[in-house]
Formats: sequence, structure tokens, C-alpha cells
Amino acid sequence: MPAQTSATVHVLPDGPTIIAPLGAKLSDVLVEAGLSLAMDCGGKGLCGRCLVWVEGAVSAVEPEEAKQIDPALLARGHRLACQARVAGELNVRLPEPERLDAKAWRIEGDEDGPPAMTEPALNGIDLHLPAPSLQDPRSDQRRLEDALAAAGRPEARLDDPLAAGQLSRLAREAGWRLRAVLRGRRVVGVGPWGQPALGLAVDLGSTKLAAYLCDMENGAILAAKGMLNPQASFGADVVTRLQRAIAKPDDGRRLTAMIRQAIDDLAGEMTRQAGVERQRVMAMSLVGNSVMTHLFLGLPLAQLAAPPFVACLDQPLDLPAERLGLRLAPGALVHLPPLVGGFVGSDNVAMIMGAGLDGAERCRLGLDIGTNTEVTLSVPGRDKPLLIASAPSGPTFEGAHLSAGMRAMAGAIHRVGVEGGRLAVQTIDGSPPAGVCGSGVIDAVAELNRHGLINKLGHLDRGHPLVRVDGTGARFVLAGADQSAHGAEVAISQADIGQVQLAKAAIRAAGQTLLALAGLSESDLEEVVLAGSFGSNFGVENAKAMGLIPDVAGAVYRQVGNAAGVGARWALLDMAARRRALAIPAKAQYVELTGESRFNGLFARNLAFPALADRSVQAQAL
Amino acid sequence: MPAQTSATVHVLPDGPTIIAPLGAKLSDVLVEAGLSLAMDCGGKGLCGRCLVWVEGAVSAVEPEEAKQIDPALLARGHRLACQARVAGELNVRLPEPERLDAKAWRIEGDEDGPPAMTEPALNGIDLHLPAPSLQDPRSDQRRLEDALAAAGRPEARLDDPLAAGQLSRLAREAGWRLRAVLRGRRVVGVGPWGQPALGLAVDLGSTKLAAYLCDMENGAILAAKGMLNPQASFGADVVTRLQRAIAKPDDGRRLTAMIRQAIDDLAGEMTRQAGVERQRVMAMSLVGNSVMTHLFLGLPLAQLAAPPFVACLDQPLDLPAERLGLRLAPGALVHLPPLVGGFVGSDNVAMIMGAGLDGAERCRLGLDIGTNTEVTLSVPGRDKPLLIASAPSGPTFEGAHLSAGMRAMAGAIHRVGVEGGRLAVQTIDGSPPAGVCGSGVIDAVAELNRHGLINKLGHLDRGHPLVRVDGTGARFVLAGADQSAHGAEVAISQADIGQVQLAKAAIRAAGQTLLALAGLSESDLEEVVLAGSFGSNFGVENAKAMGLIPDVAGAVYRQVGNAAGVGARWALLDMAARRRALAIPAKAQYVELTGESRFNGLFARNLAFPALADRSVQAQAL
Repeated sequence: MPAQTSATVHVLPDGPTIIAPLGAKLSDVLVEAGLSLAMDCGGKGLCGRCLVWVEGAVSAVEPEEAKQIDPALLARGHRLACQARVAGELNVRLPEPERLDAKAWRIEGDEDGPPAMTEPALNGIDLHLPAPSLQDPRSDQRRLEDALAAAGRPEARLDDPLAAGQLSRLAREAGWRLRAVLRGRRVVGVGPWGQPALGLAVDLGSTKLAAYLCDMENGAILAAKGMLNPQASFGADVVTRLQRAIAKPDDGRRLTAMIRQAIDDLAGEMTRQAGVERQRVMAMSLVGNSVMTHLFLGLPLAQLAAPPFVACLDQPLDLPAERLGLRLAPGALVHLPPLVGGFVGSDNVAMIMGAGLDGAERCRLGLDIGTNTEVTLSVPGRDKPLLIASAPSGPTFEGAHLSAGMRAMAGAIHRVGVEGGRLAVQTIDGSPPAGVCGSGVIDAVAELNRHGLINKLGHLDRGHPLVRVDGTGARFVLAGADQSAHGAEVAISQADIGQVQLAKAAIRAAGQTLLALAGLSESDLEEVVLAGSFGSNFGVENAKAMGLIPDVAGAVYRQVGNAAGVGARWALLDMAARRRALAIPAKAQYVELTGESRFNGLFARNLAFPALADRSVQAQAL
Repeated sequence: MPAQTSATVHVLPDGPTIIAPLGAKLSDVLVEAGLSLAMDCGGKGLCGRCLVWVEGAVSAVEPEEAKQIDPALLARGHRLACQARVAGELNVRLPEPERLDAKAWRIEGDEDGPPAMTEPALNGIDLHLPAPSLQDPRSDQRRLEDALAAAGRPEARLDDPLAAGQLSRLAREAGWRLRAVLRGRRVVGVGPWGQPALGLAVDLGSTKLAAYLCDMENGAILAAKGMLNPQASFGADVVTRLQRAIAKPDDGRRLTAMIRQAIDDLAGEMTRQAGVERQRVMAMSLVGNSVMTHLFLGLPLAQLAAPPFVACLDQPLDLPAERLGLRLAPGALVHLPPLVGGFVGSDNVAMIMGAGLDGAERCRLGLDIGTNTEVTLSVPGRDKPLLIASAPSGPTFEGAHLSAGMRAMAGAIHRVGVEGGRLAVQTIDGSPPAGVCGSGVIDAVAELNRHGLINKLGHLDRGHPLVRVDGTGARFVLAGADQSAHGAEVAISQADIGQVQLAKAAIRAAGQTLLALAGLSESDLEEVVLAGSFGSNFGVENAKAMGLIPDVAGAVYRQVGNAAGVGARWALLDMAARRRALAIPAKAQYVELTGESRFNGLFARNLAFPALADRSVQAQAL
């Protein structure tokens, strides 16, 4: 027998059972087996998100774990998977995967109803085929093509083996009555007679994945669902994942497999929820930033990570879902709209289309705020009417890098107000506060600025009654330890304010840089479009008040929800929308901010907070 | 901890380690883990081919094993995997996978040199691309397409993500000098500057897999290799596999995975042997019978197994190698020539092309003898000049169903002669006889017939000195227990002769049925073409003498080797050959023998052995 150098790890409740080398980190073992763990800190024991329950032979508790884990949980067997190591046979239980509430995350799509479909991407034709006999032993493939020719589609071809397999099974089950679904002249699948084909639109973000299950005939949304991007177990931000994937090709392959698996899981959940067969999903579209798209496709990444930041491919693609590990209808094709460049992905193209930024009849600034903030300036009459930049805003507004930050989920403080010297906070679901999310941070910092609790440089007024100062530093307490969900104070610290300054300065300076390149300034803006779930959920006035977005008198401010998701749906449903998306890269000029000297100056200038006319008055009133 | 219901099975020397339920058959455990075992009997303990070595907790020896396994081997731990069951942790060692000698199996291809390539399937263009810079950050995809446009190929498109990935890697390694390889307007891959693309032609037989690694520019064969079809662990014949795959869809998936894995393994071995990167294999062709093709593609099988025996698809296909689990060049396409119908596969189409049977300037009979024998009659001037039937000949000539039968490998008796009352036998490699293969059986039965040791009905002359009769029955002993490799007699029994009669009658009657349908008889034949490794290795005169093939005065007899393999190579290399193959189904009339009443009569008549003019003379001379 081989020497005892490995042990069995049972993942409860349903497996898998893994043979792991003794001494291996539990997180490595679990991630290697294809399981998903949140590890915002990249496995350094700092974020506490990879908490698992362990029973059996496991290494002793590390100091990082003692710091991160509540002693009661520690005593009951909770551990950080990134610190605990396999010491022998053991059982482990992972946290339930997080699913996002479609409403709270505003992934339910545009409120304007389904788009006008001028040229549907899929066309269904109901057919009644003659059954085979010894006198008529044509192959199923030829039988279908002959029937399509008789129905006026002589050029139609069924050339995908999986779609042919679906035909052979379904035709016999359904007595040779079925619907052939064509994309152009290509049969992509067969489905039940008289029933519309379905489609899946996916917006693949670094943090979050949003998916929409649609009726391909009328565009109606049958289900919408979001989930955290499981790649978070390889680091919260895209750069960390990119670097890991380049350093360790195996990790790159795992990141690719992970995201494909997550989309496949979502497809399963959404079709179950809508009460339809997943075999009826005959088309998919996917948009994402360049790194996410490259990871999804399993493309090389090294050239994306160093100047001049070149995409491997940037033109639209149509690929069999099967090649991407997605179990949709056997012949389903996945459409990926074009990228603009190494830093500007198809999510931006979809956002531009979904938010109507490619119309160019107005001077518009579009912001899609995320770990990277996509900034689009639309300038009428310019040769390249779309100026695009990616601002390195970091995950601050997603709750990372903040002492009490969290994602916009149950328990997150999302509204903060100070009136008459008194603080009022609201959590998303009304439960006791567990932390503060991006919109809460904007409110809090806007109020700090409005009421003079911080100066222009962001320093907290240590003498102010709402500012608490003790051995751990100065901070603005939103909920005391006695009020919070887990017995720890929820506060905005001096360091947190610094993080917010870095993020807002990057975003604001990016827009100003693009305006300067077009010979314009913020006062020329006629419209400011805020896209994305975060951009659609914060208070616009407070965002102006703390300097995140320009405050332009007379400009229209629109919060458009997940415009990238809207664009992804249009690209799913309509060939005309695909052509519209295809035209966007040619209209776009990508501006690499690291190559723009004025960006650094503008960034430095925007670290400061705006002076507010009523600051002194308000301060007196407190 | 879960209750102890499973145990660990270590496969030596390199794994895998499998967790198996207690009580599971070792063969099920190994096959489920993707390992290949020969089980001609389908796992009934009758063929002895799944012999493995076991150490550890295994069930007691079954009576079948005691019969099949040499006691010395049994004592040393050898077991039949289809009988032994897991009783706890154990180690197991499988026999080395069998690889076939290209020469002995006549898979080295035609001896006429590479085919004339009128329209090469792939075209290479050497390019020197400008390196990207901040001023020129075009994607790698667009950079290549622009360079191809400058080289006179403006319509060329690189639209496969894997080929694009290969470009990104190779261009940077090779300083932006590379060869783009196009199939029509599609870039299928990039390779080293100045080096020809390679291709793989595969002839996928039920029993045997033959593969040729070719230079796509000049057609030269760089390597040829054969192996037993690993699906044999699911039964030697195609009908058993078909039935199992239909009854258990999981087994069907496993059969598909097995054959893809085997081809992938062969590709790896052959490129290593030829000293080339497998990334340079940019095209593949595959021919096979309809069931093998359906299994390879993972298509539904039920409609193939019952009247009217309908193919799911029959038209030519070009599929990304990646979709088939084959690790060739990332953008490589696999070409599958058309099938003729549910019973006539692309191997027959390739054989017809490779053997020149589609010329139709002569009346020709083509026989490709295997578990099913493909019979082709070429009749000049007929509306459908090709009549095709599949004769249910069974695996007798592959050595199965015979008391001492074996495949044509080392130790197999392949030549038998009787002269002057004395028997002379030859084995393939001159080693002591281990069994008798198909060509040896033909010789033996021809000599039995020639010398009157059997009568017309095949009954052995029990009084003849070369016929041994004892408690186990009458038989023609080719090697005594003392001369054989494993201490057991090698003989042709009365039952074996019956098997040979069934096989030869089916083959001969199939040809006669086709001739009768065309209003012809055997005497009208101008040429008899014998294809396949078996058909090219037996003695033609003896095959006539025992009635396997017609004996027509003045007809030309040609043994053409693996004509299906030749056709597969042509289809790999040349677009004109692909069009030629595409034309064959329209010229072909498939004849379902079970629907032809005259077949049964002819079959019964052909069970008898031919009367030989010199039989009495020879018999006297003994």
C-alpha cells in the first residue's frame, strides 16, 4: 500500500469526497475540487470570508483565525479555510452559496418593457415530419432539412451533431411534430411544437454575475437572477485574479471552469424557477470586461496585463454553448459582442447601447461604477463621438477595503442621514446593522462634508460630538457595538475616508480628463448617466455633495440600472442590436489614463472634498 | 464520519486512486474510472481477456476464474476483473495496453505514395506581424487579419477563440514571425514560420483503430499506428455495445469518452514518435461505420438499433477538435465524410474511394471483412452504380468465438499448410503458437476441405489421422499442448468449423444477393477487391478454396490494404477528395439484407464447402 501521505476530506452534506495531501491548505483542496469560496483577501486570513465548519483531523488554530473568528464560532469548529490545513480524515461544510435578490440588486432589467425586436435572432418554424419507414429510411437530419425546404427554407442546414441528436430524441417522443429553431440558415435546435425558444443574457462582472432568462419571440423576462462571481475566491479584484492566472496557468484554468460552472448553475436554477426545460434555451449572450471575457473564453492573459494591454481577440463571436461547458439546448450558440480594447470590454459596449450613449445627440457622461469604473463621454459631432476610459476606482464602493464595509445585502446600512445633530441609519432589510455598503458610505461621507465633520482634505474633526476618538483612532460611528448584528461597532474610520477619497478622485478625474481631451469641461455636460446596480442605488444629491459625480446646473441625471444587462438582452434577442453593438468600437476612442499626464493632476485635485455653501450654517445648527 | 461502505482502489503504477463501493465488480470500477479492459465476452467470465493482478481485499475466486486462469497465475494474484469484487482497500495492475504493429496490421497505408492533392485542404501563409505598441494596440486577432489582407487574403477570418489564443502565445514566443494556416477563408491555427501543418487521419473500426499522421502539404505519412478499440471492454461486437449504450445511457457516454480518449492518446504517441508538437496537427479526418461514428459524436443510438435503422445524421461534418475532446491545434477541425445510411458508414465511403470502387468502369466486387463485412458491388452504367450491403459475418475471422482464436498478433498461427500428410504452421513472429488468427483459420479450413478432412457440410472425418477425437470432441490440432506458448492445445474444433461456415456464408451470400439484384452473377465479375487488414493478409487461393470469396476465372484479385484508411487520408488532405466522397452516397443503393428474401436462401446454400476437383486425388496422396 502507498505510504500515508494523503487523507480523505468529506464535503458535507453531498460530497464530493476528496483525497488531499496531508498539510494542504483546506482552501486549496476545496478550490481544486471545483468548489467556490469567497476570499476577498486572496487567502491571507484577513477578510474572514472563507469561514467553514470543520470536524476531524485539522491543524491548530492560527493567530489570523483567532482574530477573525468569533470565539463562540471558533469553539464550535468554525475555521478559515485559507488557514486550516488537512491533518487527516475530516468533514467540512461550506457556507451556502450567496444568491442575490434581483430587486435589491436592480438586475431585473429596464423598466421600459421588452425592446422592439426588428430582426429576431432566432426564428421558429413548426413542422410535422413523416415518420421513417423501410421505404423512407432518410436520416433524421435530411428529413428535417427536406421538411424545411418544403416550408420555404431550402437553404436551412442542420449541421450541428448535438442539435441533430436533440432532433432524433424529440421527434420520436413527440410523434414527429416539433418546432425547428433557426438562426439565419442554421438550425440551432428543435423544441416542442408551438413553444417559443428561450434565451439567456449574462452580464459577467468581476464581482457579480447577473442573468436574464428571456422569451426569444417577445423579449419578455421569465426570470432574473444574480450571484457573486465565484472567482472571488481567487481575490476580490480583477487584477489579483489576472496576476494569479498568469503566474499559475492551473489557476487560470480553474478561474475559467469556475465561471462557466456558475453560469451553468444559474441557467439550471432559472429554468427550474421558470418551470421550463433547460433544453429550450437556444441562445445566450454574454458581456463582460476584457479580463472576464478572456477568462470565460480561456484565452491567454499575459498580453492583457502589461502595456500596451492588448486583447487577444476583440471581434464578436458566436460559439457553441457546449464548447464553453454550458448545458443549454444542444445546438445553442453563445454570442459575445465586440470589445473596444484591452481595457474596455463588451460590458461597456452593452452599457453604451443599453444606456443609449451611442446616440450622440447630447453631450453625456456615462459612469458604470465598479471595481473598475467605466467612464464614457459622448460628444456630438466628433469624429470618434465616444471617449472611453477605465478609472481604477477599486472595490471601496463594493464594501471592500473599509473597516466595516460589506456588499449591498441584508444587514448593510445603505442610507445615512444627519439632521439636527442626530444620526439616522437604515439597513437594506431593516435588520440590525452588520456593516455599511457603498450607498451608505456615500451618504455618510456627504453628511460628514455637509456638516463640517471633515475638512476639505477629509480629516475628521476629532472634537465633534459625532466623532468618536479612542485608542483605535478617530471614526464616525454609524452603529454602536450594542446595536449591531454581531456585537462589533459599524463605523467610518479616518482610513475609510481616505479610501473613499482615492475612489471618488479616480472616477471624477477620469471624466474630467475625457472632457479636457474633447476641449470641454464639466459645465458642458447636458446629461449624466449612472449605470450599474451601485450607480442606480445611491442618492444622487449626496454623490454630488461628496464629489463623486459632477454637480452641473441644468444637466439631466439618469440612474438607468444595469444598462450592461439591458444591452446584453438586446444583443441576445435582436440581430439589429448586434449590428448596433458592432458599430460601437469604431465610434469609440479608448483613452489610457496612465498615458494621460493631466489625469494625475486632476486625480490629486479631486482628493479634496467640495466646499459647500451651507457648511458653516449647518455646523452651527448642530 | 460516513459509514464504511466504500474502499480505496489504487491502480498501479501511476493511479488513479478510486473510491469504490464495497462489493462492486472490479471491471465496473475500472471502466467507470475511464480505464480500458478487453472483455470480448461482455463481462461474463468467459473470454479471460480482462486478466488483472490484484493485491489486498478482494472477493474469493469464482468458478469461472478457476477455469480461465492458469493456476500459477491465480496463485500469484491474477484475477478476472469481471468476476473479482472490491472487499476493501486494494491495489490493482492492468495489462499493458495493446499497441499494434503497423506493418503486421497493414495500416502503413497505400504503397503508391501520397495522393495527388489537387486542392489542399489547408493552406499556409508565412507572415511577419508588426509588434503591438501604445500607438498600435490592435488586438492580436485584428493584427493577424490585417496582415493576411495585406498578403492578398482580405476575406480571411480568425474567429476561433482557441486559434486566437494560440496566436497570442506563439506570436510573442516567435517574435511575431509565424505561419497562418487557413482552411478556405478561416484561420484554423498558427504554427512556426516555414513549417507545414500536420494532419491526422483516423479509421475507427469496431475492433481496431488505425491512425496516420500526415504532412498536410505533400501528403507524406510521418507515422502510422494502430490500437485495439478500447470499447472492446463493453463487448467485442458493435451490436453488444450498441445495446449496452441504449440500455444504459451512462455506458453510452463512457463509450464515447473512451474512443475520444483513445484517439487523443494515439495523437500524443504519434506526434512524440515523429518528434513534432501536437499543436501542429491542424486537421483531422475520421471514418467509421455508422455506429462508431454515432458513438464518437455522442449521437442518439436507439433509432440505429431497430428497423428502419435510421442514422441521426449522414451528411459530412466539420467540427472543432476541442468539442470532441481532442487536444490538437486549438482551432483544428475534424472532418467526417458522409455516411450512406444507418448500416453503411463513412468507412465504407472512404473504402470505396480508397479502393477506387467508385470509378464504375468495371464490374467489381469489394469486400471489407470485419465483424460486419461491408460488401460493395460496382456495376457500370447503372443509375445507382454502387450496391452496398453489410453482411453479418461476426468476429470469427478476428479470432473471437473460436476455441483457440486470437487476433493477428505475436504468437498467432497465420499460415497453415498440409503437404504429404504433414501439417506445417507459421506464427506471425515465429514464436510458439498461442492461438490461431483469421488467415490461419482460412488456410486450415481450406486445407481441411482440399484434403477431404471435412465433408461438404463441414463435418470432420473422425477417422483421419490429422483429426484428434477424445472426450472433448473432434478437432484439427494445429499445435499440441507441448508445442504451444501456454501449454494448451491450439486446434480447430468442429464447433469452430461451424462458426467459419456461418461467417463465410454470410459474406458470400451478400455478394451474390447484390449481383442478383443487378441481374448479374459471380461469373460477370471482372475484379474482386479485398480491403482491410484481414482481407489483405489471407491467402487468396485458400479463401477461394474454402468458399469465402468467389472463384472467377479471368477476374483480377486485388488486396488493397486498409483502403478505408487510404480514403480517410485523402479526405484529410484534399478538398477534391472530400467532394468525391460527398458524391458517393448519391451513387449508392443500400440493400438491407434482412429485407431480401433471396439472401436467406443463398446464405443456407453457402454454408456448404465448395467441391474441389482434386479433392479425391489429394486425399489419396495423404
